[in-house]
Amino acid sequence: MDFPDINLAAGPVEISPRVSMAMARPVLYHYDPSFIELYKRIDEKLKKAFLTKHDIIIQQGEAILGLEAAAHSCIAPGDKCLNLVTGVFGKWFEDFIIAAGGTVIELKKEYNESITEEDVREAFRKNPDIAVMSVVHSETPSGTVNPVDKLCPIVKEHGAITIVDTVSGVFGSELRPDDWGIDVCITGPQKCLGAAPGLSIACISPDAWAKMEKSSAPANSYMSFTDWKSKWIENSAFPYTPSVSLLYGLDEALSMLLEEGIESVWERHALSARMCRAGIKGMGLNLWPASEDIAADCCTAFKTPEGVDSKAFRDTLREKWKLMIVTGYGELAPHVLRIGHLGHTAKPLYVLSALALVGKALLDSGVSVDVGKGIDSALAEL
Amino acid sequence: MDFPDINLAAGPVEISPRVSMAMARPVLYHYDPSFIELYKRIDEKLKKAFLTKHDIIIQQGEAILGLEAAAHSCIAPGDKCLNLVTGVFGKWFEDFIIAAGGTVIELKKEYNESITEEDVREAFRKNPDIAVMSVVHSETPSGTVNPVDKLCPIVKEHGAITIVDTVSGVFGSELRPDDWGIDVCITGPQKCLGAAPGLSIACISPDAWAKMEKSSAPANSYMSFTDWKSKWIENSAFPYTPSVSLLYGLDEALSMLLEEGIESVWERHALSARMCRAGIKGMGLNLWPASEDIAADCCTAFKTPEGVDSKAFRDTLREKWKLMIVTGYGELAPHVLRIGHLGHTAKPLYVLSALALVGKALLDSGVSVDVGKGIDSALAEL
Amino acid sequence: MDFPDINLAAGPVEISPRVSMAMARPVLYHYDPSFIELYKRIDEKLKKAFLTKHDIIIQQGEAILGLEAAAHSCIAPGDKCLNLVTGVFGKWFEDFIIAAGGTVIELKKEYNESITEEDVREAFRKNPDIAVMSVVHSETPSGTVNPVDKLCPIVKEHGAITIVDTVSGVFGSELRPDDWGIDVCITGPQKCLGAAPGLSIACISPDAWAKMEKSSAPANSYMSFTDWKSKWIENSAFPYTPSVSLLYGLDEALSMLLEEGIESVWERHALSARMCRAGIKGMGLNLWPASEDIAADCCTAFKTPEGVDSKAFRDTLREKWKLMIVTGYGELAPHVLRIGHLGHTAKPLYVLSALALVGKALLDSGVSVDVGKGIDSALAEL
Amino acid sequence: MDFPDINLAAGPVEISPRVSMAMARPVLYHYDPSFIELYKRIDEKLKKAFLTKHDIIIQQGEAILGLEAAAHSCIAPGDKCLNLVTGVFGKWFEDFIIAAGGTVIELKKEYNESITEEDVREAFRKNPDIAVMSVVHSETPSGTVNPVDKLCPIVKEHGAITIVDTVSGVFGSELRPDDWGIDVCITGPQKCLGAAPGLSIACISPDAWAKMEKSSAPANSYMSFTDWKSKWIENSAFPYTPSVSLLYGLDEALSMLLEEGIESVWERHALSARMCRAGIKGMGLNLWPASEDIAADCCTAFKTPEGVDSKAFRDTLREKWKLMIVTGYGELAPHVLRIGHLGHTAKPLYVLSALALVGKALLDSGVSVDVGKGIDSALAEL
Repeated sequence: MDFPDINLAAGPVEISPRVSMAMARPVLYHYDPSFIELYKRIDEKLKKAFLTKHDIIIQQGEAILGLEAAAHSCIAPGDKCLNLVTGVFGKWFEDFIIAAGGTVIELKKEYNESITEEDVREAFRKNPDIAVMSVVHSETPSGTVNPVDKLCPIVKEHGAITIVDTVSGVFGSELRPDDWGIDVCITGPQKCLGAAPGLSIACISPDAWAKMEKSSAPANSYMSFTDWKSKWIENSAFPYTPSVSLLYGLDEALSMLLEEGIESVWERHALSARMCRAGIKGMGLNLWPASEDIAADCCTAFKTPEGVDSKAFRDTLREKWKLMIVTGYGELAPHVLRIGHLGHTAKPLYVLSALALVGKALLDSGVSVDVGKGIDSALAEL
Repeated sequence: MDFPDINLAAGPVEISPRVSMAMARPVLYHYDPSFIELYKRIDEKLKKAFLTKHDIIIQQGEAILGLEAAAHSCIAPGDKCLNLVTGVFGKWFEDFIIAAGGTVIELKKEYNESITEEDVREAFRKNPDIAVMSVVHSETPSGTVNPVDKLCPIVKEHGAITIVDTVSGVFGSELRPDDWGIDVCITGPQKCLGAAPGLSIACISPDAWAKMEKSSAPANSYMSFTDWKSKWIENSAFPYTPSVSLLYGLDEALSMLLEEGIESVWERHALSARMCRAGIKGMGLNLWPASEDIAADCCTAFKTPEGVDSKAFRDTLREKWKLMIVTGYGELAPHVLRIGHLGHTAKPLYVLSALALVGKALLDSGVSVDVGKGIDSALAEL
Repeated sequence: MDFPDINLAAGPVEISPRVSMAMARPVLYHYDPSFIELYKRIDEKLKKAFLTKHDIIIQQGEAILGLEAAAHSCIAPGDKCLNLVTGVFGKWFEDFIIAAGGTVIELKKEYNESITEEDVREAFRKNPDIAVMSVVHSETPSGTVNPVDKLCPIVKEHGAITIVDTVSGVFGSELRPDDWGIDVCITGPQKCLGAAPGLSIACISPDAWAKMEKSSAPANSYMSFTDWKSKWIENSAFPYTPSVSLLYGLDEALSMLLEEGIESVWERHALSARMCRAGIKGMGLNLWPASEDIAADCCTAFKTPEGVDSKAFRDTLREKWKLMIVTGYGELAPHVLRIGHLGHTAKPLYVLSALALVGKALLDSGVSVDVGKGIDSALAEL
Repeated sequence: MDFPDINLAAGPVEISPRVSMAMARPVLYHYDPSFIELYKRIDEKLKKAFLTKHDIIIQQGEAILGLEAAAHSCIAPGDKCLNLVTGVFGKWFEDFIIAAGGTVIELKKEYNESITEEDVREAFRKNPDIAVMSVVHSETPSGTVNPVDKLCPIVKEHGAITIVDTVSGVFGSELRPDDWGIDVCITGPQKCLGAAPGLSIACISPDAWAKMEKSSAPANSYMSFTDWKSKWIENSAFPYTPSVSLLYGLDEALSMLLEEGIESVWERHALSARMCRAGIKGMGLNLWPASEDIAADCCTAFKTPEGVDSKAFRDTLREKWKLMIVTGYGELAPHVLRIGHLGHTAKPLYVLSALALVGKALLDSGVSVDVGKGIDSALAEL
């Protein structure tokens, strides 16, 4: 197999050798005493990493599973659901609301903008009986963030439940579920945590559990949060077989996070993002987000220059210099290129080589950029 | 972490170092050209290993996900569903039928017996309009098998759809979906294939696809088969992020299977099973299955001797000699002990040490067994 | 590559996954601060594991390098050297004595016997001016031990220097260099420590250093002990590039040894050896050592039965059942078979399957053995 | 353990995950049929990689072992030995000549220069009876090369034997032992091959064997070439235990080399070197080699700027940004800094980030450099 020398996608992204190695440990039976102990240890570490006292549930599938499960668990048929849309993933959640029987109230902005407090207040003025609000914290395809610290408290004032997709947000930037009124937030290991994809991590508040109980959320299903509550949380039993090897990797990535310090990890992401944005602008390129204030810490999205084909450009870097970056996702693909700096790759080392090679490839494509100035600008942030 | 020296559970079970190592490869972005190529290669290998021309779908979660998806996809509200029950997993499937809106017609036997052709014919005589039949090929908790090669063709004669849970059956014993009239069969990597848990593999016939189309099977869901068809099979696009590292392991385990030869792998499982049963009987213990004809090749279930506590016994072996075996599952736990011999562990080497140490631990518990005779009997099969 | 399922050679022998994984860590530059720290930590762990306050030197080559270095360093031209010979390795040391300019005084026994205190006293009576005594602690090819705890003090009474080849002795059985008057002892990681081959570990007393100084032991050589003293011990500088990856494995194996407890590890080796000997005798086979009192804890040597070709027998086990055992070494090859139980493999689990499969293969070769009785006898020791 | 994100030392250097993983394979007994096969395969691959029909010997210790062995084997007492000295390693070889009993004739240049054909011709004019010439192909500490393609044929015209230290030369730049009259050349895996340190690889011509035979080169020693000839080459027997795990890594690294193509690997090293030199000069720094014509492809040595402490500077990069570069070696340490680009790290990706971070750290140290211009200059070579 041919591997890139560095995978700077926006996830799944390069993971550290330490996390890779962990996944190669012998496979334990899931009721082996060592495995039960490991699982409990992961639970404790996740609570620390999430700065939460809420319950943690690890579902054995990609984070989309958790997002769908959140909709199915927390939305009762007929519930009015305010869905904030600032990108592809926000729009996607609509499907889950509909499948759960909810009524969608969309609050949509351009895919390079973000939602404000006033937007949400206005939505509640129009629909005071909104039962659930869903929002993407970090819209990876757009490289933008929504201010969930400000939006969720407003929702809670109205007694509604908040569902936050923080797949590429948490661990790469501040998130305080308990303080910010987040009832359910979902992430996966393959983003800012720097582990391998295949797990979904949910952080669930007492209010969310109460809502599920009231609306008899589905049980006996791969998609059920309540199965994990009644079996794992209350009885140390697994509803089905956990993904042993991925959990080894998750455990190790969490150790690394806690050893480094949560705030240091946030700062490392923020620094990489600042350098990357400065480099992009310094070269003479344009950022995709409408304003730097709403730019994400996990990846930098910039506008694909005139005359460049996003996908072909990505493939050239991969083929010639074994560097993997990515295009925008879905409808944004032709317009956006993205450099990931998240998890293990949120470091000056990788940002700098990505900037230099992206610059060189643009020069080779006939785009006029000043690579040296880009690097100097990036270094000025360091 | 403390690991057993050998994990002879009935899954997840010890995997070979070669498969372990594969999982430690660098994490690729899922649209990296190398990953797309890998995924297609896995697809081809799975078709060979399944001896099928049917479509293959790999869902990114444990095999239970695939089983639940099979129910949701293939059972339309109101469908009469014949559910064969000879153990815990067969009974479990009932929940999925009900959730999918099907009407359950149960055909149940004692949990140490199996279903016969006549049982199924009789069921169809009573309910000729059965739309779907579901059966567990290898009931791991009971250590028994159902003759799906004989049962499924009967069902097909009646124009119904067959769903086969062959999680611990296929690769450890013969299975021919195309020849035997199996419309949907589901397995996972953590059993006879000898890889890590976390994936669900489905083999889906044209009849099954037709049924799904007719009944508008759910789409836009983690549980959807049709999403994988319309996205992956038809467009080489992923409905969501695949479990990159687990797929590395799956790929390597499939290479090993095909290098060894499918029939040799079946024979290796059968030999291990014969040795294990001979050893258990030779020692003076009683097999759990009512007859050896229906004993599974993946694990040997035997009756927990009078006066022995299954779970405490299991824990003693784990603690004293770092050997992991397992009890029965669910309601069978107090009555049954099981030695796994599947995937990487389906080898005389492991069967022999398991027999000797199980024997020794029983002696230490005051049970009168003739360990030497057990070993001699096992070796006589070699 | 085709691997045996278990490598029960007498070294290099199967290592634990934990040690394997350690060797896959990223390669550090040898003056990276993390590497310097690692090297110092290994040094400390080795002192603990050797129960010594003497200096430790790790040479970057197999233990033979250390043995040759010991001769070159400690033997001055003209020195009378008493070389104890009870097997192939003892005899081999003669070459190094001669190359170093020493005069060989051989004290030789049959290769299934061992040296007694009286033998040594007698040698000194004849040659009171012996300057150096060399002895193999555990003669792996013969599966026997020499009582170095008793022999070395006698030598020290006469003011001579003792060189002990404890390659397969230390860590698998008691060794106390400081208390027993051992001036230089040499081992490697691939025996009772359960790590990979490629390093030589020497434990060197003040008397040995004094002798080297007096006789101006060679410097500026890959074979020099004094280079390591003047560079590493005194200045934290390496005389040449250390084997980074092997040292990762050594470090991890030492951690495992110290976590388990040195005495527990001795007892685990002794138990495995007792079980193996009981099994061999119980089956009706004959041990190679003249007496069980002098049988080694690292491997069990038994007489190749009449009509069996040692090498072909070994190959059959390897090919049919993926079990690696070994023949005797050198001239003992046709007469001796050996089952290793050292390091990671010094466990009942492996001894039992080895006994059963060796028994089966002998039955297949027409040798009449009672395998069941062998297993029962082995279990009686457990 | 704390690891740098990238180790750009001049060896041991970062290795690829593929080579790392290989070292974690199960440890085989050295006479396991799979190991014998592996060893022979490595031998064949080495012949291809060395473009040679000469014999290959792998000694189980760092390359210094091979260099010392070359001196001991090929130099008879009294032999006149022309030792070319253009750096620390060339000077070091003098010790081995003296220990072997040879008479040293030194041909020395400044440590930033290299030897010319005329220098060698002149030496032979003065001493036509020179028996052996020794030269370092790539003087890693100086970042310079000697033109062995031109020098060795001159020596062969005079019937003398050539010993070439190509530890950091071969595989990173052209070397043709058979065509260029190189009798013994030595390398190790930790340089341009991108594997882990701990082995020494020698390529030995018929003339060299003849010389050894004539002068009765030492046998029965860890340092003996002839032991490997009489045992391994002629009898497939090992003189002592090989370093199993390191050989796994060597094998994998050779596969990667041959898959990529030997000439492509040379070109990759040359490109990385050109980029690095252009970047260094573009920033406004000074290369250490007197002329770019003699600059090595394996690493770029540049003058430590006024007011900068080499070692403290190296440590800063390591600590702040997890980048390992190195100072000069020995007496060159205070005057020289070096960026390695060899083996796995000989790639634009790593050169670019090294240049940017070195530049930034110099700016932080108060040295006036134009980092952007350095990057632009480097990219101009790409």
